[in-house]
Amino acid sequence: MPEVHIIGAGETKFGELWDKSLRELAVEAGLKAIEDAGILSKDVGILYGSSSLAGTLNWQNDMGSLLADFSGIAASGIPAVRIESSTSSGASAVREAYLSIKSGEYEVAMVGGVEKMTDIYGSEIHDIVSTTLDREWEAFFGATAASMAAISARKYMKDFKVEKEALSMISVNDHANASLNPNAHYRNKITLDAAMNATLVAEPLNLMDCSPVSDGASALILASDKFAKSVGKDGIRIKGSAIAQDYLALHSRESIYTLKSTIQAARQAFEKSGTKASDISFAEIHDSYSIYGLMELEDLGFAPKGKAKDLVMENIGLNAPLPVNPSGGLKAKGNPMGATGVGQIVEGYLQIKGKAGERQIKNAHDGLFHSMSGSGSTSVVHIIGSE
Amino acid sequence: MPEVHIIGAGETKFGELWDKSLRELAVEAGLKAIEDAGILSKDVGILYGSSSLAGTLNWQNDMGSLLADFSGIAASGIPAVRIESSTSSGASAVREAYLSIKSGEYEVAMVGGVEKMTDIYGSEIHDIVSTTLDREWEAFFGATAASMAAISARKYMKDFKVEKEALSMISVNDHANASLNPNAHYRNKITLDAAMNATLVAEPLNLMDCSPVSDGASALILASDKFAKSVGKDGIRIKGSAIAQDYLALHSRESIYTLKSTIQAARQAFEKSGTKASDISFAEIHDSYSIYGLMELEDLGFAPKGKAKDLVMENIGLNAPLPVNPSGGLKAKGNPMGATGVGQIVEGYLQIKGKAGERQIKNAHDGLFHSMSGSGSTSVVHIIGSE
Repeated sequence: MPEVHIIGAGETKFGELWDKSLRELAVEAGLKAIEDAGILSKDVGILYGSSSLAGTLNWQNDMGSLLADFSGIAASGIPAVRIESSTSSGASAVREAYLSIKSGEYEVAMVGGVEKMTDIYGSEIHDIVSTTLDREWEAFFGATAASMAAISARKYMKDFKVEKEALSMISVNDHANASLNPNAHYRNKITLDAAMNATLVAEPLNLMDCSPVSDGASALILASDKFAKSVGKDGIRIKGSAIAQDYLALHSRESIYTLKSTIQAARQAFEKSGTKASDISFAEIHDSYSIYGLMELEDLGFAPKGKAKDLVMENIGLNAPLPVNPSGGLKAKGNPMGATGVGQIVEGYLQIKGKAGERQIKNAHDGLFHSMSGSGSTSVVHIIGSE
Repeated sequence: MPEVHIIGAGETKFGELWDKSLRELAVEAGLKAIEDAGILSKDVGILYGSSSLAGTLNWQNDMGSLLADFSGIAASGIPAVRIESSTSSGASAVREAYLSIKSGEYEVAMVGGVEKMTDIYGSEIHDIVSTTLDREWEAFFGATAASMAAISARKYMKDFKVEKEALSMISVNDHANASLNPNAHYRNKITLDAAMNATLVAEPLNLMDCSPVSDGASALILASDKFAKSVGKDGIRIKGSAIAQDYLALHSRESIYTLKSTIQAARQAFEKSGTKASDISFAEIHDSYSIYGLMELEDLGFAPKGKAKDLVMENIGLNAPLPVNPSGGLKAKGNPMGATGVGQIVEGYLQIKGKAGERQIKNAHDGLFHSMSGSGSTSVVHIIGSE
């Protein structure tokens, strides 16, 4: 089977982008990725578009066709498919692109993740985001993404005697890193005190524990080792790619603070890549809510269960043994759902190439990228490294 | 690379199914397919869920997770992804499942296509279906799926001097076949006179030219040749699978009655399968509107351009040289969008196995299955045959 390399990446700024439409954002990121790869758009074999809410919020389905159309690649007949898996849509699309190259049917696959979440009035966005929960058994009774995270947080904090401080440090770290990322939604640093005392959203989670409503797009170009070598871009390889599943509804899970899907996907990705947690030089994790950051560091294998607080309180900054979310993470870089999982790997590509500017990590080599849908129903883990 | 076989199929009735929810329909079809394959649900490596409108109409995104949850396969960690490509969602999901096996990462992949379109009041369904057009450049100005088809029909009929009769014969044939299919939405035969004189929808298309709003679900189990052989189910193989793209917006196409994406996908599928049009013993084509039936028979290679009327007026019934839509097609079997493309291949599987009951074609061997999104932006073609 062919190996799969990342040969180009592109991204828009994340934020409240009133002056750009859904399609404009996606095409901006896509063209940057094609330019970065130094290929022609007709070299692309297939396009995977990812967006979770376009059908619900923007009333635009068939996003794959839309992006192929507006970018002009439809002129060459290059096929397009939309992948939708809630907040893991982008990472799932990267995995489908990876499989498409592994299958031998395509040499080059493009992934374009996009979300335009601010084209809506006020609090309706929470109802729209809750379409990614179990609509009939969770959302219908008033549950939102934040309230599900809050339920997990309360039990986690009680069972493991974790103080709010540890949750807040996830967000403090995100904002510190995002202050160095020109594409981040929020570029302000926050103090631990500010993070702990922000307005409550769903106790114990406050505004500084919750990722924002963002617009943005991210794109990647994946290629077979043969193609990558032919264009002199075979430096960064997807060493492991895995996806696993848990129940959609939180109430069906074995534990509400252990992410079984994350444990399984991580184990598979480590196995496939021949790496272990201690080989990873940095990680981008899915902290849509700060509590998930702690749970994930444990379930990915970076800390024992209930002990991520020690890692987080000590150091997860750019100079730490394991820098976490150098991009600024979901909290501060932003969380345009369909773009989020693609954007994590864009960050990985930049870090490993040494092109991450002011937020560059020293000796970035193997990185781990974790994305999940909703409160952890699907987890996708990629391990990417320089050869 | 492994070859890909179809080892099981299942389907619900298509129709107005008031007493069954989105998830119930999907799981009913899925469990039938697993039972038919004679495997255990834990044998499934990955689930591809397809639904076009669930996020817009039912306010349920992350359909992959929902189906994995409600069917119980999430308990084993089996991953799930949702594929959305308008009315070709199901066929695109079959292709992704095919690629996942070709990649060597999975031995068994399940496809579950579903749509629950009748849970809405009155004519709003047309606005919802038009989310699969270009929302900003077509739907916003009042275009619907039917009106786009009507524009193509008018020009086609004028340029090729085709009478309404030829369009109506597509629907007459569909209803005749559906009368023999217990799972079809409409089981009544219609006369040519009735088909020609029904209430107008968008001139020249009337009610009998337009596929209905249906609920329903279809499922398939695909497996590698190795796995299929190990369970004694290696009889039906996907010989060719292809997907191609055209512009989403009709106004950007080179021609409004030539389906470039269909021509390209068909050419690729024939090439990959080593077959040609004359080798095909029956076809399921995407006649969401009768005019598309004519255009597709030409662009798939079964008739010269502008001449499908001759084929259709002569004979496309169950005893014809090329039986078309033995299932009853989109017009009469029904068109639950996310299930439609999967259902075509369920029909193919039944026909080739000789299990199609009263509508069984004699000597069914290689079948061609064509599905497309919207007015032809994406086309997916599969060629499936007995070994």
